[in-house]
Amino acid sequence: MAKYEHIQHEAFAANMQLPQLGLVVFTFGNVSAADHRLGAFAIKPSGVPYQELTPEKMVVVDFDGNTIEGKLRPSSDTKTHAVLYKNWDKVNGIAHTHSTYATAWAQSLRDIPIFGTTHADHLTIDIPCAAPMSDEMILGDYEHQTGYQIMDCLSGRGLKHTDTEMILVGNHAPFTWGESAAKAVYNSAVLESVAQMALLTEQINANALRLKQSLITKHYQRKHGPDSYYGQ
Amino acid sequence: MAKYEHIQHEAFAANMQLPQLGLVVFTFGNVSAADHRLGAFAIKPSGVPYQELTPEKMVVVDFDGNTIEGKLRPSSDTKTHAVLYKNWDKVNGIAHTHSTYATAWAQSLRDIPIFGTTHADHLTIDIPCAAPMSDEMILGDYEHQTGYQIMDCLSGRGLKHTDTEMILVGNHAPFTWGESAAKAVYNSAVLESVAQMALLTEQINANALRLKQSLITKHYQRKHGPDSYYGQ
Amino acid sequence: MAKYEHIQHEAFAANMQLPQLGLVVFTFGNVSAADHRLGAFAIKPSGVPYQELTPEKMVVVDFDGNTIEGKLRPSSDTKTHAVLYKNWDKVNGIAHTHSTYATAWAQSLRDIPIFGTTHADHLTIDIPCAAPMSDEMILGDYEHQTGYQIMDCLSGRGLKHTDTEMILVGNHAPFTWGESAAKAVYNSAVLESVAQMALLTEQINANALRLKQSLITKHYQRKHGPDSYYGQ
Amino acid sequence: MAKYEHIQHEAFAANMQLPQLGLVVFTFGNVSAADHRLGAFAIKPSGVPYQELTPEKMVVVDFDGNTIEGKLRPSSDTKTHAVLYKNWDKVNGIAHTHSTYATAWAQSLRDIPIFGTTHADHLTIDIPCAAPMSDEMILGDYEHQTGYQIMDCLSGRGLKHTDTEMILVGNHAPFTWGESAAKAVYNSAVLESVAQMALLTEQINANALRLKQSLITKHYQRKHGPDSYYGQ
Repeated sequence: MAKYEHIQHEAFAANMQLPQLGLVVFTFGNVSAADHRLGAFAIKPSGVPYQELTPEKMVVVDFDGNTIEGKLRPSSDTKTHAVLYKNWDKVNGIAHTHSTYATAWAQSLRDIPIFGTTHADHLTIDIPCAAPMSDEMILGDYEHQTGYQIMDCLSGRGLKHTDTEMILVGNHAPFTWGESAAKAVYNSAVLESVAQMALLTEQINANALRLKQSLITKHYQRKHGPDSYYGQ
Repeated sequence: MAKYEHIQHEAFAANMQLPQLGLVVFTFGNVSAADHRLGAFAIKPSGVPYQELTPEKMVVVDFDGNTIEGKLRPSSDTKTHAVLYKNWDKVNGIAHTHSTYATAWAQSLRDIPIFGTTHADHLTIDIPCAAPMSDEMILGDYEHQTGYQIMDCLSGRGLKHTDTEMILVGNHAPFTWGESAAKAVYNSAVLESVAQMALLTEQINANALRLKQSLITKHYQRKHGPDSYYGQ
Repeated sequence: MAKYEHIQHEAFAANMQLPQLGLVVFTFGNVSAADHRLGAFAIKPSGVPYQELTPEKMVVVDFDGNTIEGKLRPSSDTKTHAVLYKNWDKVNGIAHTHSTYATAWAQSLRDIPIFGTTHADHLTIDIPCAAPMSDEMILGDYEHQTGYQIMDCLSGRGLKHTDTEMILVGNHAPFTWGESAAKAVYNSAVLESVAQMALLTEQINANALRLKQSLITKHYQRKHGPDSYYGQ
Repeated sequence: MAKYEHIQHEAFAANMQLPQLGLVVFTFGNVSAADHRLGAFAIKPSGVPYQELTPEKMVVVDFDGNTIEGKLRPSSDTKTHAVLYKNWDKVNGIAHTHSTYATAWAQSLRDIPIFGTTHADHLTIDIPCAAPMSDEMILGDYEHQTGYQIMDCLSGRGLKHTDTEMILVGNHAPFTWGESAAKAVYNSAVLESVAQMALLTEQINANALRLKQSLITKHYQRKHGPDSYYGQ
């Protein structure tokens, strides 16, 4: 059916970026592309190696996690994507990886401190690490609850998902999102780079200080503010 | 002889994966593929660079370590493979590498703590590091004893080799195995990734805690349990 | 206009080196090539991916930061390049990256100690880290002030920009320069390598000592002194 | 002249291995190939990028460091190679790199402890770090003295250069050698790998112990002893 072809192609292209950017090994990681008008998103099939993917193999799923089109089983993380799309109507792409440095921060249960302008070019706050789920949530509908774990962490800290497009799920790994699947993948790569630099910064100076507010504001505004002058 | 061609091809393909996955330099590392019906396995010849390998060069050996077919000398670790196949009838592939991070953990004589879900997706316990051999065993039939070192470590901890498909041989390097040679190599790559993340986790948080049991169980079961829903 | 073609080509070639040397991801980083006779330099357009660059897309700018030729918006860091060219008449190339290790040192607000001859082959002093700007400067003409931040750091320490061709801008990232755009990029790669080795040196020996003066002088002179005997 | 063609080809092939193995950037590093019968060796020209090298560009030099054939200036480290060949009649290849991890150990002025069998497969002792030269030696014939610095370190510790084919020159970087230029390059890559693993081992376990003697002997002997059974 041609109806979903555009999100299948977008999801395919975005998934293929993950191994090229060094963010995944084997079948770890998945990206989806949504169309809110259709109430659907296309996502990587579960456990299929990247070199075997085609646009047609992307599974189309509704925002309750039910498969609409596709013969393969969708990613085991599909329900997390579904619940986020259902609640976030401006988000059209979500990416999940187990990239090395971001995952190490998630495993250490620490937020990533904002140490430099590379970070402030994308985010004005420490990158949040969501606390691990309660045992009850884990034993319940785990992947569905992972979506709430992400949303609860943001709301608990007074953060908007349109400003903060990345999070570490404690003990697990990062999720990132954005206005498109490509932007979600871009955010995954930025997060990995910032995560590595933050660890190195603490190794070079155990007492490294966070960036001062004036510099955070300046760098974020020149890229994202009303008077931004970055890009074309 | 066509009798062993299938395991020679399987061993060849699996060995060629090692340099592609960044797990070996030069001739370090070896993979074998067994056929329990034939009581034989095919293994990399000793000290031959990967780019010179062909399926025909894979040496066919019985489970006592005697060469059945092939003009080249088999890997110097052949007897370790042989004794494991002789004792483990469901294992059809074994891999040995000196991959950087897994080897560093082996050299430090520490188990790799289970810090995150990447680990729990594959294993529910810390990755065991087998204690170095006694001087007597070293002076004896060293490679044969390495097989017992591995089996003794597992049985001493009450672990089954069908659940735990990877180990660090203390002061030496990792061995991994599985239902096929490809699966053994897959496990080597997973181990290397988990080993790197575990070191980084301790560097980010010196007091990082192990994953709680409910999360370990959830992630392992969704991939390996009776109701698993990962993959196709 | 053919008048600026030579610096557009030089800037293009130098920018394309950045991803090949592993110094940038996405659109981070920019290089410019100047012609002091023409009072102009060519620089990467802002936010354009490296694979889409062509020589014609390089924006030509005067030393006050005004665009002379080109349809695209120049790099957001253009004014930093402009003010440095205006003050440094022997510098024909400037590079700015967020390379991993150099940026981590910048974020940690530490100079890079001179630990070995790789460093002394290029520089006789610790690589300076310029103190972060005052809030006033940040709120003013930020990129213009970054140029003064760099010059003030050098002059405050009695350093000449013709001897010291690299600096860390505190909390931000490195800038490097040289007699050509290619040399500026070369200096960025050298800085990244020296930055990584310095961190590793401190990890191996927390009390590592700076290189002694006789060795610094010897290595610097054999490459750069009047009796140098390195190169053709 | 065809007389030196074989060592020019050998030196060329060995030099080209350095960037492929990730051991050098730009023009750092050099390899030579000697023919003791001819009293000459071929070495990389100074400061020429690897991609511009050809066998004909390899400079032929005698064991006193005088150029016999070739239009280019030989490597600035030529005299170090010359003095070693003059004193070591079984060595036909020497390599010098500034590879990241080995150089960091050299800068930290520490021997690399023998932590595992990857190390013991090649060497039965800690990899020595030669103390920095006296100021007198530095001010004298520096590169010539570097040869003596290496030989003095070995003899001061009672080591034979035929057993120990690698050394760290304190504050500088590694030199390696062997029966051929290819073997010298092989040793450089082994050293870099062992250097990285040793640092990681100390990071994982600050109290990591050296390998016990029985295991050192076993691994070295199975590769290099009279009854070795590694390789073909």
